[in-house]
Amino acid sequence: MTTRWLTAEEQRAWRAYVAASLLLEDTLDRQLQQEAGMPHLYYSILANLSEAPGRSLRMTDLAESLKITRSRLTYAVARLEKDGLVRREECRRDKRGSVAVLTDGGMSVLERTAPGHVETVRASLFDRLTPEQVGQLEEICTRIAQGLQGDDGASGPEDLPWRRRSSRPCS
Amino acid sequence: MTTRWLTAEEQRAWRAYVAASLLLEDTLDRQLQQEAGMPHLYYSILANLSEAPGRSLRMTDLAESLKITRSRLTYAVARLEKDGLVRREECRRDKRGSVAVLTDGGMSVLERTAPGHVETVRASLFDRLTPEQVGQLEEICTRIAQGLQGDDGASGPEDLPWRRRSSRPCS
Repeated sequence: MTTRWLTAEEQRAWRAYVAASLLLEDTLDRQLQQEAGMPHLYYSILANLSEAPGRSLRMTDLAESLKITRSRLTYAVARLEKDGLVRREECRRDKRGSVAVLTDGGMSVLERTAPGHVETVRASLFDRLTPEQVGQLEEICTRIAQGLQGDDGASGPEDLPWRRRSSRPCS
Repeated sequence: MTTRWLTAEEQRAWRAYVAASLLLEDTLDRQLQQEAGMPHLYYSILANLSEAPGRSLRMTDLAESLKITRSRLTYAVARLEKDGLVRREECRRDKRGSVAVLTDGGMSVLERTAPGHVETVRASLFDRLTPEQVGQLEEICTRIAQGLQGDDGASGPEDLPWRRRSSRPCS
């Protein structure tokens, strides 16, 4: 099969995307490390739990919501548990599942940290975009995410991070 | 200062962006791990070197081009060097700098791996977007990257990853 190389326009868009996503990840991680001693992923775990009924979620659902592997989630939750911000419980209704619960301490950290995090997201991203571009970004990213999750029937759902056992390589 | 929380539109765009970027990262890393035994960042190091004169770049310039810290780059290059894909040399013109050079082995791996990687980028992203959206994505990401790099004079350049010594936390 002949390789369908990227066009000049696609290459420019791809390089801009890779640069922006790495710089954004670095900015968010740095701000949250300084303010809360944790990277963005850990903050997202606390934020996701805070919005769930009973501030608790099954580990599988949490991994799906975060778009990461269960082993990566298990590693992160273990550290949050050690810091007293999250607690693990057996699921009452489903013996296979284990549940993560946000503790009061975790909720306090989240409430204290949220304003600075949101300010960083705003300053890094939304303050630089027009309302039209915010809509474009949502549409573009929704299409990409749906495609990669097989919502359009294209890719195999067994490949999705939260259905796999293997961990993400740490680079 | 009152927190400027995200609007409903901004929240939707933010969640879609975070989901798409995590899924894309996972897809690219997985494909490259399977085909070349390395994550996307390592592939990008080889690709960047292959395009430079003499297939070599100063470590500082390579870190800037990749938007990562020098310590993260040093770690990655050490592994690529161990695999014989990259070689480190002292910079002839500048005693402070060290240079990374793509070896013939590294070039072979890149040539063998590039078609599959480009196909994955295309299938994950460009095949799902209209030409208009490709242009929108470039413009949005260029604005974000320029802002975060201080190209608009807003943020302090000493904060940029490639000018720092501290490493990125591994989550």
